[in-house]
Amino acid sequence: MDIERYLKARASAVDRALPVLLARLKAPQPRLSEAMLYSLSAGGKRLRPVLMGASYEIFGGKAADILPAACALEMVHTYSLVHDDLPAMDDDDLRRGRPSSHKVYGEALAILAGDALLTDAFTVLLSSKYRRPPGAEALLAAAALLSRRAGAAGMVSGQAADLEAEGFLKTGRLTAARSRAGLKLLSYIQLHKTADLITAAVEMGAVLAGAPREDFNALSAFGRELGLCFQLADDILDVEGDKRKLGKSGSDARNHKLTYASLLGVAEARRRAGRLLRRALSRLEKVKGAPAAKETLAGLSRFVYGREN
Amino acid sequence: MDIERYLKARASAVDRALPVLLARLKAPQPRLSEAMLYSLSAGGKRLRPVLMGASYEIFGGKAADILPAACALEMVHTYSLVHDDLPAMDDDDLRRGRPSSHKVYGEALAILAGDALLTDAFTVLLSSKYRRPPGAEALLAAAALLSRRAGAAGMVSGQAADLEAEGFLKTGRLTAARSRAGLKLLSYIQLHKTADLITAAVEMGAVLAGAPREDFNALSAFGRELGLCFQLADDILDVEGDKRKLGKSGSDARNHKLTYASLLGVAEARRRAGRLLRRALSRLEKVKGAPAAKETLAGLSRFVYGREN
Repeated sequence: MDIERYLKARASAVDRALPVLLARLKAPQPRLSEAMLYSLSAGGKRLRPVLMGASYEIFGGKAADILPAACALEMVHTYSLVHDDLPAMDDDDLRRGRPSSHKVYGEALAILAGDALLTDAFTVLLSSKYRRPPGAEALLAAAALLSRRAGAAGMVSGQAADLEAEGFLKTGRLTAARSRAGLKLLSYIQLHKTADLITAAVEMGAVLAGAPREDFNALSAFGRELGLCFQLADDILDVEGDKRKLGKSGSDARNHKLTYASLLGVAEARRRAGRLLRRALSRLEKVKGAPAAKETLAGLSRFVYGREN
Repeated sequence: MDIERYLKARASAVDRALPVLLARLKAPQPRLSEAMLYSLSAGGKRLRPVLMGASYEIFGGKAADILPAACALEMVHTYSLVHDDLPAMDDDDLRRGRPSSHKVYGEALAILAGDALLTDAFTVLLSSKYRRPPGAEALLAAAALLSRRAGAAGMVSGQAADLEAEGFLKTGRLTAARSRAGLKLLSYIQLHKTADLITAAVEMGAVLAGAPREDFNALSAFGRELGLCFQLADDILDVEGDKRKLGKSGSDARNHKLTYASLLGVAEARRRAGRLLRRALSRLEKVKGAPAAKETLAGLSRFVYGREN
């Protein structure tokens, strides 16, 4: 199986669904809708929704059955990028090779577009027509997972820690002790800022499919390790990657961001990513379900580890 | 019945529950949690949660049964104030008589605290223990209502329109035609920016109680008119109110905000508010349910019309 082709095909189903779901909100402010759509249609790999679909398929369904839930997760991810790019946050002018939302729509509307993407992720998750409607209990569980993984105990806590860590590298020489403290902080940031939403992807797929508790737990641990692996790969790319391919401006170094690449060097970061990939794959093996779907999820994991953008 | 005493008693139940529910999130970033709590515990009338409880009681329950849902709505309201006060938005230094969130915690953390309040409103709504747990279908409906009324078709669209309207009064003399255009725009802004969340309050109370469709619709219309009445009263207070009592700095005039008071004068704004109150009360009369609870809701409405802060 060609995993990149698979990823592209699944991503384009998400690409097609997002504007349709957005239009169904019947949001009356054209400029607000435009700003939401601008960020939603910037492309990207759609990794989180694709992971949710692949997780769901392990338990016998078809990814297309839960497309609105997958799109809802992508909306949450997109809001986080819009707010992350704001002048008060990372102050990034570029996102996926295009001007970031606040450069196009101004700061105020970018804040509101992010707020609306986050809020209406729940509208899309809870009010959409599904090809095979999940039960009310499963939908409730999926929504509760999404808010928990995205909120103050999840993604936002990682962003808050990231803020506090900014300047860590500015404030002095990296002694061994400071390096250890930095690593600890960094693991925390990466766990929440990135891994929580990737974990939510596979968890939501599992609960929407009504997966047994044991398999849910194994997938949850898998998601966590895959998410950490993803962030390591991202850090390495921020240093090494072809800027054009990545489509962002390498703000990590400019902002003195703590990254594995800056703390450990690229080679060690790459080793750690490999270790996380192997651990994630061994978690996945323990899940009882459709072998082909499990192999797809494994392929996606290897792609995450080896990707170039 | 002394409605102000009632409101205070119900508000203090919300005041007590909010920090408990926040602590249950087990959010690991102390500074983020502090910023969330700072804005949540700034007091305020807790009108929306109290309205939700009163609406719920019409159908035979006790407001305390759905306290977490009421707190979730207050969290959404609070997030909207935090983001509204940001420098890129209304740039307000004061909120409820205290420095606004970004003055205390900085812009970045204020954005994140707002994001977390919004996200975890859904965690609190969906994952809390209820004294009398609503069914999964009722909770789903309440969450879907909340996200729709707060999102791009609701509150955020009002905020976006408010942004676009800023400067309307700056750009020239108020001719009759411009005055009419301004009124139309203003009705739209008030409908969404304020009335949508007040409507959500009574709607959520009704669906959580399993109210019949007809009564839900009547309460929904009631909420809309009460919300518009509330905003008119707010506009009048921004002009007339004792600044200390109101606890904010009268930024409407400074920002050249479109308000009824600025377009029509205070006397006509007051007349319109009275008309809306009467309409709201006649909607309420049509709802079939506990007379005492209906009278409470009517008393709250009269309070909204006549309040001084």
